[in-house]
This record gives sequence, structure tokens and C-alpha cells, in this order.
Amino acid sequence: MRKVYNLQIQYPEQTREFDSRLTKTGRRSLSHSISHSSTDSNSSGGSDAENPEDEVSPRDMQQINSKGSRDFCIKNIKLTDFGRREIELAEDEMTALMALRKATQVEKPLAGAKIVGCTHVTAQTAVSVIPSRHFKCILYHAKRKKKTHTETKPTKPYCSNYCCTVDRCVNVEGWEPNMILDDGGDMTHWIYKKYPHLFKKVKGIVEESITGIHRLHHLSKAGKLCVPAINVNDSVTKQKFDNLYCCRESILDSLKKTADIMFGGKQVVVCGYGEVGKGCSAALKAMGSVVYVTEIDPICALQACMDGFRLAKLGDVVRQVDMVITCTGNKNIVVREHMDLMKNGCVVCNMGRSNTEIDVSSLRTPELVWQHVRAQVEHIIWPDGKRILLLAEGRVLNLSSSTVPTYVLSITATAQALALIELFNAPEGRYKQDVYLLPKKLDEYVASLHLQTFDAHLTELTDEQAKYMGLSKYGPFKPSFYR
Amino acid sequence: MRKVYNLQIQYPEQTREFDSRLTKTGRRSLSHSISHSSTDSNSSGGSDAENPEDEVSPRDMQQINSKGSRDFCIKNIKLTDFGRREIELAEDEMTALMALRKATQVEKPLAGAKIVGCTHVTAQTAVSVIPSRHFKCILYHAKRKKKTHTETKPTKPYCSNYCCTVDRCVNVEGWEPNMILDDGGDMTHWIYKKYPHLFKKVKGIVEESITGIHRLHHLSKAGKLCVPAINVNDSVTKQKFDNLYCCRESILDSLKKTADIMFGGKQVVVCGYGEVGKGCSAALKAMGSVVYVTEIDPICALQACMDGFRLAKLGDVVRQVDMVITCTGNKNIVVREHMDLMKNGCVVCNMGRSNTEIDVSSLRTPELVWQHVRAQVEHIIWPDGKRILLLAEGRVLNLSSSTVPTYVLSITATAQALALIELFNAPEGRYKQDVYLLPKKLDEYVASLHLQTFDAHLTELTDEQAKYMGLSKYGPFKPSFYR
Amino acid sequence: MRKVYNLQIQYPEQTREFDSRLTKTGRRSLSHSISHSSTDSNSSGGSDAENPEDEVSPRDMQQINSKGSRDFCIKNIKLTDFGRREIELAEDEMTALMALRKATQVEKPLAGAKIVGCTHVTAQTAVSVIPSRHFKCILYHAKRKKKTHTETKPTKPYCSNYCCTVDRCVNVEGWEPNMILDDGGDMTHWIYKKYPHLFKKVKGIVEESITGIHRLHHLSKAGKLCVPAINVNDSVTKQKFDNLYCCRESILDSLKKTADIMFGGKQVVVCGYGEVGKGCSAALKAMGSVVYVTEIDPICALQACMDGFRLAKLGDVVRQVDMVITCTGNKNIVVREHMDLMKNGCVVCNMGRSNTEIDVSSLRTPELVWQHVRAQVEHIIWPDGKRILLLAEGRVLNLSSSTVPTYVLSITATAQALALIELFNAPEGRYKQDVYLLPKKLDEYVASLHLQTFDAHLTELTDEQAKYMGLSKYGPFKPSFYR
Amino acid sequence: MRKVYNLQIQYPEQTREFDSRLTKTGRRSLSHSISHSSTDSNSSGGSDAENPEDEVSPRDMQQINSKGSRDFCIKNIKLTDFGRREIELAEDEMTALMALRKATQVEKPLAGAKIVGCTHVTAQTAVSVIPSRHFKCILYHAKRKKKTHTETKPTKPYCSNYCCTVDRCVNVEGWEPNMILDDGGDMTHWIYKKYPHLFKKVKGIVEESITGIHRLHHLSKAGKLCVPAINVNDSVTKQKFDNLYCCRESILDSLKKTADIMFGGKQVVVCGYGEVGKGCSAALKAMGSVVYVTEIDPICALQACMDGFRLAKLGDVVRQVDMVITCTGNKNIVVREHMDLMKNGCVVCNMGRSNTEIDVSSLRTPELVWQHVRAQVEHIIWPDGKRILLLAEGRVLNLSSSTVPTYVLSITATAQALALIELFNAPEGRYKQDVYLLPKKLDEYVASLHLQTFDAHLTELTDEQAKYMGLSKYGPFKPSFYR
Repeated sequence: MRKVYNLQIQYPEQTREFDSRLTKTGRRSLSHSISHSSTDSNSSGGSDAENPEDEVSPRDMQQINSKGSRDFCIKNIKLTDFGRREIELAEDEMTALMALRKATQVEKPLAGAKIVGCTHVTAQTAVSVIPSRHFKCILYHAKRKKKTHTETKPTKPYCSNYCCTVDRCVNVEGWEPNMILDDGGDMTHWIYKKYPHLFKKVKGIVEESITGIHRLHHLSKAGKLCVPAINVNDSVTKQKFDNLYCCRESILDSLKKTADIMFGGKQVVVCGYGEVGKGCSAALKAMGSVVYVTEIDPICALQACMDGFRLAKLGDVVRQVDMVITCTGNKNIVVREHMDLMKNGCVVCNMGRSNTEIDVSSLRTPELVWQHVRAQVEHIIWPDGKRILLLAEGRVLNLSSSTVPTYVLSITATAQALALIELFNAPEGRYKQDVYLLPKKLDEYVASLHLQTFDAHLTELTDEQAKYMGLSKYGPFKPSFYR
Repeated sequence: MRKVYNLQIQYPEQTREFDSRLTKTGRRSLSHSISHSSTDSNSSGGSDAENPEDEVSPRDMQQINSKGSRDFCIKNIKLTDFGRREIELAEDEMTALMALRKATQVEKPLAGAKIVGCTHVTAQTAVSVIPSRHFKCILYHAKRKKKTHTETKPTKPYCSNYCCTVDRCVNVEGWEPNMILDDGGDMTHWIYKKYPHLFKKVKGIVEESITGIHRLHHLSKAGKLCVPAINVNDSVTKQKFDNLYCCRESILDSLKKTADIMFGGKQVVVCGYGEVGKGCSAALKAMGSVVYVTEIDPICALQACMDGFRLAKLGDVVRQVDMVITCTGNKNIVVREHMDLMKNGCVVCNMGRSNTEIDVSSLRTPELVWQHVRAQVEHIIWPDGKRILLLAEGRVLNLSSSTVPTYVLSITATAQALALIELFNAPEGRYKQDVYLLPKKLDEYVASLHLQTFDAHLTELTDEQAKYMGLSKYGPFKPSFYR
Repeated sequence: MRKVYNLQIQYPEQTREFDSRLTKTGRRSLSHSISHSSTDSNSSGGSDAENPEDEVSPRDMQQINSKGSRDFCIKNIKLTDFGRREIELAEDEMTALMALRKATQVEKPLAGAKIVGCTHVTAQTAVSVIPSRHFKCILYHAKRKKKTHTETKPTKPYCSNYCCTVDRCVNVEGWEPNMILDDGGDMTHWIYKKYPHLFKKVKGIVEESITGIHRLHHLSKAGKLCVPAINVNDSVTKQKFDNLYCCRESILDSLKKTADIMFGGKQVVVCGYGEVGKGCSAALKAMGSVVYVTEIDPICALQACMDGFRLAKLGDVVRQVDMVITCTGNKNIVVREHMDLMKNGCVVCNMGRSNTEIDVSSLRTPELVWQHVRAQVEHIIWPDGKRILLLAEGRVLNLSSSTVPTYVLSITATAQALALIELFNAPEGRYKQDVYLLPKKLDEYVASLHLQTFDAHLTELTDEQAKYMGLSKYGPFKPSFYR
Repeated sequence: MRKVYNLQIQYPEQTREFDSRLTKTGRRSLSHSISHSSTDSNSSGGSDAENPEDEVSPRDMQQINSKGSRDFCIKNIKLTDFGRREIELAEDEMTALMALRKATQVEKPLAGAKIVGCTHVTAQTAVSVIPSRHFKCILYHAKRKKKTHTETKPTKPYCSNYCCTVDRCVNVEGWEPNMILDDGGDMTHWIYKKYPHLFKKVKGIVEESITGIHRLHHLSKAGKLCVPAINVNDSVTKQKFDNLYCCRESILDSLKKTADIMFGGKQVVVCGYGEVGKGCSAALKAMGSVVYVTEIDPICALQACMDGFRLAKLGDVVRQVDMVITCTGNKNIVVREHMDLMKNGCVVCNMGRSNTEIDVSSLRTPELVWQHVRAQVEHIIWPDGKRILLLAEGRVLNLSSSTVPTYVLSITATAQALALIELFNAPEGRYKQDVYLLPKKLDEYVASLHLQTFDAHLTELTDEQAKYMGLSKYGPFKPSFYR
């Protein structure tokens, strides 16, 4: 079972100590079941329940680190060594970030920056934070898995603690943040609401999530965004890696780990042919599945056709398929009527963004029996004995059952770092009080830092070629709308 | 050798007659080389010269059609039946255009439009022209192949005739064009320069080529574009089909027809990983080639890596590869130094846009022997006996040696028609004196009209879903930067 | 953690009861980590150690089933319900076997057969055993995982119990086996040695493992095989599914579950291009890896080339690759010299048959540090800090870290059943005292029974076509050497 | 239309001169249609008729070569230079054969062999013949294309000449053949029937065609084969290259050259999933087609499923597909009932072996109109206007419209050469009066000679590994049934 504890840590000034305190949450936040789902007999394994200590909130524990500091809050300090090793491993893989760290060691482009943020805690986050000596404060929160999956804003009972901890990061005597690095917009909105005087002084916001971007756009439309913000989420590199490349691998991984299905010869319908749908379809096709695609957007639909997929309506193929995978970002893609038509053994899962794509609530009716089979797998049994396999209870499958590769996290972290540097150092007037895409040139820089992993050798334009193309030799090489 | 005669036709009012006069040029202008592209070295190559009749300019012939009209100019009127059949076949495949024709039969959105244009003549163009009863005038010109490939503006000696014919389309008594449908910008610039009073009255320009777009942007920057223009070239559908999907097929076709090479096991380097490079690489990989990619843009480079290609510099792999394919749009990608290093039998060709990608002039030196092997294939022989195969003399290969599928031409023609309708009917103020991308919604409409060919069934948003996504049920479904 | 208990059951006459006694070992013997690596908090999870009851040998327990029978030996009878459900699930997927069961219900082709065997216990085995009312006796043994992986013959201390149990299956008063269904040859050799009078009366042997086939050939060469045997292992269907199709999926699954590596852009060398190597290479290529292949057999080597892989010697690429995967069936493919050259982070694993492909013993030297990272993953750390990831300690990776799909097990079980029927019913003289391949027609029958899972519709020859081809309408359709 | 003239050459003793006399037939016999396969409907089609000289039989011409020899018969001696260059080009590509030639220069394993044969004349054949100084006599015949396609035995009127020429090769004073290298069995049967005393003295026969193998098996069954023969046709390398690898490329090539169809998004049914069907299906899938497969053999059917193709009956999908491709080797796969159901524009073609797969005769009915569109393309028009495209009039498509890569011909030629050497040098008793597969070791040698083209590096077994596997270090590496 994956252990992502409900720890919340407040870290003014002691980032140095961070590595010694990262705990079992170490591995990529969006789950990784292997580490503690170990087949290793001496793993303590197990649920929270098995460890009485778990029942005590870290906030109620008195803890002290090797340097005598008490200003932190950690669940199980005994896991220090495990955490340290995970960070070392992550460093090995996050060569781009390490290269960036090196590149900025002389110039120190974030000198003077006081950054506050609110994000998931992982070994990878640690790698991105440690180099930033300029981070004065950061809140690490790793919500419990189920909550993470729903991606909801924290509910009340939880909130009382959470907000409290958020607040402890901002409300520090003698220290005022001037940059926000956010993931979901919680920190941004906390400061906006509770510390409006601080908000005005902030030089820039870097936001990496769709939810956060939506919230920023709302602020902006309402004329209340008095700070420039960079939307890291829609950078080409992040989009391609988070969606296309990541899902191409994680769909297989997730299905094996849960439904344990053989892909060869199976009929699958993939709902939605955006980047996620493209990744899932390509992977399953490569494994010998027969894939149907549904789409609402004719351009994506035409691409599906040209890529060799039959474009169908879900209702027209749902009787015959062995798997239904939603990748739309929309709601009620698979509804009860569809599930009533599915054949025995059909697997239903969601690779999209929300937990609304499958109408799971329609399955909570008396005539259907739910049977928990194993982690992330429920059998829903119809009165006639037909069973369908619902994975992750309709939540986003690869977040529950696969891992986000370190490399993909490195892409995001690098983009964040560059966005912070850009906003912090931009001359007056370059950015107004608006939400910007990551400048193409920085997006290209993120990519170039990640090429070395593949021993990839980029070609440089000659002067003559650059002139012929009307380009700078150092980019940007494409118009901003180019994907 | 491909026969595309130097015919130039002026067509005021008689579009009805068009189908009876399309000639041997009938098949897709950008090639179809099979016809006379003999592998026989001493084939005279079907040049105009072989047929004495060819020596008479159509302009000097007295011709008359079945209805007694003489106001046209055609090379070989005997080929009427062949032309008619080719048009019928094209109609069979251009179902999207036919559907559009039908859809507009009642509303007649181009009633009152007087369209003038200048484009290649093919059976497919005919299909797109015939339905437009509103076309008052159009110039059909099919330049000789070699000139077509260089995509240069017409040179002087040629121009004298060409311009003359262009002029005959505009300078018609009692008729003034109010829309321009252009391919390359020749007509636009002719009117801009020679008939400025007409230019001001034009309601809109639709341009489908890169060259034409460049020329429009120049006008616009100089403040001289007093007419709104729609850039059809950069629509998502056109880009994907012209480049990715078209080249995926035509690279194989072209290489077989010329070098007649076996793909399996061969090492290939593809220079450039834009849409054309992606298409070429994917196709060759699928055929069992080992493909290397070169890139200057780190984002495309990273995509090449994630797609399973080794990213290298040309100089580092040029010794070992069996083929070099340029797809950059840039100049001097393959230079003499590279070719000196190539191994015996290496094939060199260009799938990019210009004829400058391979520095062919550097091969015109005394120590190298050129040997014409068959159509589109030259052996360049080094003093030590090494020979490389240069295809199409470095010009764009698939234009010389493959065909553009009717379907792809239908995409463009549909986009043009919709752009014309949009500009002609747009309310005041929607478009200013600028160059616009094809509106996303129209791009989506182009795609949707082309789905039926594949028996593809689009899903419709429910009201609830549309609301949830904040979209209209009828699109546009994506932000304009989405590709 | 995967639970495969050390249970040994002897089952004279009570097969009926089998389903109520299958235990936690239920899921596919060759591992399946998910079931009990559950993230489900109420799973009892854990190692044998955690449960005191585990320490008592099942042989020392007094057990009694619901019908009062005591003649069995089971580890944890409380898991009955779990076992029953797993069997039901397996039945759902093993439709071919269920169809065969149905097809033979009238004719009862095994009436009179008294079958003894020795194989792994899984839910799937249960499905294949239950229908066979004619099974009089079977030994279920599921060795502990580690032992299973090494695929060695049982060592002494273990043997004492094991042989004892084997013996209890044969040495039954009033019952004499006349057929052997073996997996590894243990039962065959036990009877051959201990009960030569029984051996002579046996009508046939069906063997499914390479090891067992080798042992049979030894007997045969020595002139001591006085019984016809069918080699199920080399049937086309079993070979393709066990190797090509199974490994195509399990290589990805296994690598994700252990090294948790991103495949895109990675360089991999696959040693060996037999069916296993073909499956691994194809899967990794499809995921965007750059794959090199090594081979000793020029025919397979040429196939690798034509499939688009660079054929190299391991020593020539080992410095640059991110992964080394052995699929040869040979020994010392990866030796210390190779591992000394590998780059930091290189993953080394074995998908072949033996545990000798990687010379793991050469890593057991003082200067190298072994660090256990998680289940199936060791870091071997060089003095300069370089670490390589050794998976499954060099044992067969997918046996440790993936599952064999039920469908694949069904292929084997069906082939076994048909081979039993064939040998038991064959007229005198059809089979001599030799080892035979599964007759082509039966191989085809196995395949045809498995088509319905894919809703696949076979075409039937017309009489005219059968005559033209010189074939029976019902097969066999290919010469026996056809693969 | 392809020009393969009806030349028949008899060549005692003058092989030396061969290269100077190869004519327009130079390019690979089994096609290369580009030359005159005009899309032009009124092209006279390059038939012999267009050239008056063609009307004179070469046999009636008095010819003399540069050395004064008159003992040959050639159509157009003026094409000497063209022929010579084609041979040089072929030599460049046939490195395996050149390597073999070199390897045998010292040992001269065919010294004393007097070989007679009957095969197609191409530049590639020349390469294989020239090195063999031991060829005393060979008949080159290149039948007219139409006859070639039907693969029938020569009809009477043709035979009179043909047999005459065959006879001139055998019936040479002072020279008696002792080896036969045959392609189709004509020479074998001529000698068997006409010169039984010679037949008995022959040391061996090497046959490369299915037809020839069938005829040998007939002889053998009748007890009349008094000579050992090697079946080169069924060697693994030849099978894979002639079928799988060759068709993977030529299906695309052929369809482009004839139907000029876009593959992306099209629905295709491939009848038969042997090597040819596998190659066609894989290629079309890679180009974005949706492919259905039909099969009679459940093993191949299951492979199609696992490779991601829907297995269907032709009648169930024929209404919806855009193309039907037969690859069965059987007859009447596509019959009139199917064609009546096809949709407008459906393409029908045959990639199998015979010209019987499509029941073309059923289309020769009064209500259907045949319209010749361009080379190899007929429109068959139904009364309601529906048209289907029949390619190559139902004959084998890639033989008409594509080329066999030189590399593939080199595979066959090398196998033939090795088989000749083997039979000529085999010790008494190794081969009896029977038909043998090419020994595995020689098959492997053919492959190894062809690896260098791909810069492929084979791994050698260590002594220890060879011992462990029970193999010789030099092969054979696999059992003979291994494919």
C-alpha cells in the first residue's frame, strides 16, 4: 500500500535540513505503490492502522532535528535515511535541474527572491527546492491519496489544519515573500485574501496546474490580479510530457497493476483523442489491441482516423469492447446506460482529469453488487451475474496506479524555476498584470536541458541559415502557436 | 517525364464549359510522375519537344468549343473526354466539397461574389471551381514542372506570357472582381500594383501558400494591405494533411519510384522533425529502417527522442547512412563536405520546401561526373568511383515523384471555400486590414466535412457537458493555439 | 507481497472438493504481486513470518473438510472463499477450456483415464483440473517463489517432503495411474524409477516444460522410454504465447514494477532475437526506446535488421545504453567486463530462461556494494559511485515481477488436455515409444478454441477451395514445420 | 506497360560476353513497371507493336559479337551499354554474392561442374551467373509479362520456340551438363523426358520455385526422381524475404503506382495471414489504415488477433471496406457476390500467388462495363454507376507494379549457389534421391553473407557458451523446424 502521510511541514529558513527530513512520502507524490507494496518480507508494509504512532497527528508531536531546530512538523522522522536515498536517486535522474542549478551558481538569478509555495512533497520536489537557496519558505503538503485523486479543494475538517499550516508559511515574523510558486492556487488565494498588502508586493506568480490557471484567470477577469503570472501548465514540453508521453506508458502500467489484463487482441474504446487519448491509443495499438476512438472535436477526430483508429460513438461499440478508457476532461462520458450494455468482464477506467468522466454514482443502486477484488479494482455485479471491473472507483487511474516518471517531474520543475527567474528579473513593463504562457524561448530551454539524458545532439544554425530563416541562432525557433 | 503543359486559360463567364476542356494536365498538378517518368535513360522523356504540336503555343491556336465560344486558350482540346473522366473521379473522392456544394445550394452564400484567382489546374481544382457558380473569372496556369518545383516567381521570358494571361482575367470589361482566391500571391500583387482602385474594393483575400502569406505579411507590415486576408495555409487541417499525413505516404512512394530502394534495415537520417520530418521518420521506421533525426529546435528534438529516434548531428552519422532526407525548409542542410563523406550508394533527397536544402551547386565541379540514370535519378560519381544518388536534382522530391492525394487537395479547397464565404459575409468590423488564421470553427468544419470518407462518427456534446466545459455544442472546441 | 505457500496437497478421489480448498496460492503461480501487495488496508498482507500459523507445516496439521475427508494437506483452509472467487474469475477468462469441457461432456474421451501429475497450483490449474472428472490423482505443489524462479530441481532438505508427497499420489491402494501429465518431469521420473511396473502400463505422457522435454529425450536416447510422449512445449501456439506475446507485455510491466523507468528515448540492448527477444524489442520500440539487438544466429540477426533494429555486439554498445535485457537461454551473456563499462544508472535484467545469463556471481566482490532498494531491485555500486540496477538478482524478470495472463495459461492447459485425449484414444501404432510434437491439427484446434475471446470469425474453406489446395476442410492447414 | 522482351538466348561457353549483351530487360524481371506504365489512357502501352523492330524475332536476326561469336540470340544488341551499367549497379547491391564469389576464388568448389538452367534474365541474374565460370550453359528466357504473371507452363504456340531454345542449351556437342539450376522445372523436365541418359548422370538439382518443387515432388512420389534435389524455395531466408519483407514494401508501392490511393484512415481487408498477408497488413496498419484479416487457419488467425487485427469473414466486412487484398494462394477468395456488395470506389487486388484468387471471369458479364483507366487499373462499372477498381486484372499485383529489390534476389541467388556447391561436393550418401530443404547451416550462411549490407555485427558464441547450449560455434543454431 502506498504511504503518503498527511504531513504538513513549515520550513522557514531551514531548507538546508530538508533532505534529512523527507520521509516515506519521498517517492513521487502522485503515487508509487512499489516502494511500500514491497514483496520484501522485512518491509513493515501495511496500513496506517498497523502503526499506532500513525494515529498521533504530527502536529501534536514534539520533534527536534539534529541541529536543535523545532520549527518543523514531520510524521516519522525515523525515515530520514530512506528519504535521503530517494533524493539522491532523484538527483541522478534530474540532470536537467542539476545542470540548471550549476548554470545559475555564479549569477544567482534568484538572489533576493523570497519564495513561498504550496505543492506536493516528493523526493523530486526536494531536488528542485534544495538548489534554491533563495527559497525562504515552502509548505509541503501531501494529502492523503484519496483526497489527492479527487483534486478537490480541501474540505472543512481537513482545512482547519491545512489552512493553519499554509498560514504558518506566510505569517513569519521578519520575512515577507516576494514570489509565489503555486500548484493549485491555494497559496496564491490565501495571500490574496488574508494578506492583500503582501499580495501587492509580490513580483510574480508561477502556477503549474489547470485548476490554478483557472483561478488566476478568474482573478484576472475580475480585475483583481495585480501581479504578473506565468502559466507553466500550457508550455509545450509540460503538455507533451504530462499527457502524451506519460500516459503512453502509464496506461499500460496502470492496467497491468490493476486489472492485470492481457492487451493483445482486446477491443478497447478510448474516449477523447487529445494528448492523453493519443498516448493511450498508441500504446494499446502497439500492444495488439483493436482501438476505437470517440471524439467531439472534428480535427482531433480526423487525426484519429489518419492514425488508423475507427472513430465511433461510444454507444455503438460499447457492447463489443473489453475496455473503456475515458480521456476527455469532461463529465458523464460513461453513464449507466453504457454500463448496462457492456459485456461481462469489461474494464472501465478513467485517464482524464476529473473524477466525473465515469458516472460512478449511477452504479450505487441496490440491484448492483460491489465487490472489492484488490486494490483499485471493484467488481460491479449485475443481477444476471454480469460483472464489470471498475478501476480506481472512477478516479484518475494513472495517478492511483502508476508513477509519474522523475523525468517528467523534472520538466515541470525546470519550467517553474525558469519562470521564477524570468518574472523575478524581467525589466519593468515586460509583464503586465496578466497570465502569460511560458515564453517560447524558455520552453525551448527547458527542452534543451533535457536532451542530454538521451545523449541527443542538437544542430546549431549557421549564421547564414539563421539569416535565411529570419531567426536568432539561439531561438525561439517557432511561432508561439506552434505545438 | 510528367506532362503538365504550359496551358493558360482565361475563363470569363464560361465556367460551365470547364469540364469539357480540362486536358492532359488533368491529374493532380503537383505531379503524378508515373505517366512518362520512364526508367529508361534514353527515353526522350515526354518533353513537349517530342510532339511537334507542342511547339505551337496554345495562345497562337484558333480554338472553338462546342457552344461556339472562343474565349479560352487550351493546349489540346482532343483530351476533353479524358479530362471529363478525371473530374468525375475526383468528384467521387472529394465528397466533402460535394457536401459543401450541396449545403450551400439554397443559401448561396457567395451570391454576388466575383472571384478572381490564380492557381494550378487539376481535375481537383475543377471540382472546387465548378460548384462555385459565383466564380466569374479564374486563371488556370500550370507551370512547367521544373518551374513549379523551384517555386520561384516566374522569370522574365516566361512572365511576358504569364502576366499577360493574368491580366486578361482582371481586365475584363463590365466585370470587376471583389474577392481574390490566390496561391502564391501573383494575382493579389498584380491587382495591387496594376489596378489599385480595384484592390481597394476587394472584400477579402484567401491565400493558401507560404509564399503568398509571406508576401501578404510584407504588405501588411508596410501598411499597404487595405483588405482583410485569411491565411488558409496555417490551418490545422491543411498543415497536418499537407505535411504529416501526405509525406508519411509520399516519402515511401517517391523513394520507390526513383531510387527503388528497399527500406528494411537501411540507415536513414532525416533532417528536421517538423510535420514533414515526423511523417517521413514514422513511415521509414514502420518499414524497418533505422532512422536518425537532426534538429535545431530543442522541443522538436525532444519529441524525436521520445518517439524513439536518435538525435544526431548530420556530420556524425553521414558516413554510415544509406539515405539522407532533408525536411527543414532551410538552406544548405546537406553540403559538399557531407557528400564527400557519404558512403557508396547513398541516396540524397529533399522533402522540404525549397530547393536550397541540398547544396547541389557544390556538386557541379569538374572532378565529379553526373550520370543520368532514370527520371529523377542522377548518379554523382566521385573520382574514386563512389557514387551517390541525387534525386530530383535536389528539388522537392514528392512534388516530382509522388502525387498529392485528392483527399488532401479537398481539405485545402474546402478551407478556401469556407474562407471565401466567411470573408464575403462577415459583418463590418469582424476583420480588419490584416492577415488572419482560418477561424478555429471553420477549421473544425473543414475537418467534419471530411470525416464521412472514413465512415467516422462524431460524438455530440450533451447540453450538460457543453455547459460543464464552457463550450458551445457546435464548437470551437479548442483554443486557437491548439494543434 | 506475493503469497505462494509451501503447500502440498494429495488429492485421491476428491477433486470435487478441490475448489473449496484452493488457497491464497490461487493466483497464477508464476507470481502475482498485486493481490497481496494490496493497498487495501484490511488485507492481512504480510510475510509468512507475520502469521504464527505459517510456521506449522501443513503436513503437521490435522485438517478436515466439510465432507469429513481428511486426506488432504492444506496450509490455510480459511482462505477457501478467496480461492473459490479466484477460480470463478479464471473460469470467466478460460473460455476455451470451458468450451472444451462442454464439448467433451457427452463423449467423455478420458473415461477410464487415471491421470497423475505434478504441476504448479493456481486458480487456472484448478479450472483445468476440475472439468476432468477422470483425474484420479494429482499433486499440487507450489514451491516458494525464489525456488520457483531458479527452476532447479528441489534441493535435498526440501526434497524429503516433496518426494514424499509425490509418492503419496502414486502409491495409492487400489488405484493405478495410466496417464502422466507432467511439468518438469518429476512425476515421470519418480514413477520410472520407483514404480517401473507402473511405468510400463502408462498409455502416455504429456509434458509441458523444456526441462521435462530434455529429460524425456535423454530417456529416449537411452532406449528407456517405453511410453509415447507428447511435447506440448513446442506447439506453435504455446511457443508464441509463452514467449512472443507474453513477453511483449510483461517486459514493460516488469520494468515498470521494478526499475520504474520511463521508456521513451532510452537506449536499450536486447540480447537475443528469438521469440522472447522479438517481443521485448517490439514493445520497447513501440514505447519510444532506441533498441539494439545482439544475436549469434544470422537468420534471426537478419530479421532484427529488417525489423529496424541495429545489430551490434554487446561490448560495442554497452557503454551507451540505459538498459540491458538478456533473452538468449544461454549463459554469461552479460559478464563483469560489460558491467564495468556500463554507465551510471544502467538497468540490467534477464528475460531468458535460465538464471545464468547475467554473471551475477562476478558482482559478489568486495569492492562492489550491494544495496537493496526495493523488491527485485538491487543497486550495485562501484567504488567511483557508479551504480547499476540489477533486477530480480539476475533471475528471470517477468516470472518475478509480472503475471502470466490467464489466457496464456489456458492455451497450455487446452493443449495438455487435447494431448491427453489424443494419447489415451490413439489406435495402436499411431504413436511409438518416442517424443512427439503436438499434432498440427490439435495445435490448430487449441487456437480455434481461443479465437472466440476475440470475437474472431474464422473463414471455412469451400469444398472447391479445399480440393484446389489439397487440404481437408478441417485442417491441418499447414505443414508441420510451418511456424 | 513494362517492356520485357521475348528474348531467348543460348549461351554455350560465352558467359564472358554476357555483360555486354544484356539488354533492355536488364531491370529486375519481375517488373519495374514505371518505365512505360503510363497513366495516359491513349498510351499505346509500350507494346512490342510500337517498335517495328520488335516484330522481327531475335532468332531470325544474324548477330555477331565483338569477339566474332554468333552463337547467341539477342533482341537489341545496341543496348549493351545500358545493360552493362545495370549489371554494375546490381553488383554494388549484391555484396553477399560478390563476397561469396571472392570466398570461392581459391577453392573453386564448382570446378568441374557443368550447369544448365532456365530462369529469368535480369541484371541480377547476370551477377549471379558471371562469377560462375563453371556455368557452361544457361538459357535466359524472359517471358512476356502477361505470361509471366499467369505462371502457367508455356502454351503451345509459344512452346515451339521456347522448347527449341531449351533444347539448344542441353543438346551441345561435346558438352554434358552435370548439374541443373532450375526455376519452374522446365529444364529439369526437358532433360528428364528427352535425355534420360543425361538425367541419370546429373549430380543434383537446385530448384527455386513452388511450381518446380511441386513437379519434383510428383517425380519423387512416382519413384522417378533419380537425382537428389534441394528445395531452395522453402529456406527461411528466401521465404521471409520473398514474402514478408518484400510484400511489406511492395504492397504500398504497388497500390500507389496503380490506384494512387491515400492509405490513412482507409478500411482494408487482407485475405490470408501468412507471410504475405502479415507483410501487407503491417504496412497498411503503419500507414494508418484500419485492417481486417480473414483466415482459414486458426493458428494464423490467432496471430492476426494478437497483432491487433480484427478477424472477420470477407462477407461480413466487404460492404464497408475501401480495399480488398488477397494473399492466400487459394482460388475464388473474392467472388462476384462479394463484388456486388462492395461500395463505390472499392479497390480489389491480388498479392497472392495465383491469378485465381479473384474470380475475374465473373466480371465478364454484359451488364458490367470495363473501363481501362491507366496501366494496371480497370474500372468495373455496375449498372447503378458503382465502380470498383480492379488492379492488374486480378493477377499478382506486386509482380506487375513493383520491383523485387536486388537484395531479395541476392538472397535467392546466394542460396542457389550454395545449394549447387553442396550437392556437387557432398560425399556419397549424404543425399539420396529425394527433395531436401536447404540445410539449416547453409540457410544461416546465406543470412550471414547478407548482414554486411546493414553494417550488422554478429556475436560469436564462446566455447563455454557453445558447450552449454550443445551447439557448434559455427551453427546450425536452431532446429530445422525453427522459422
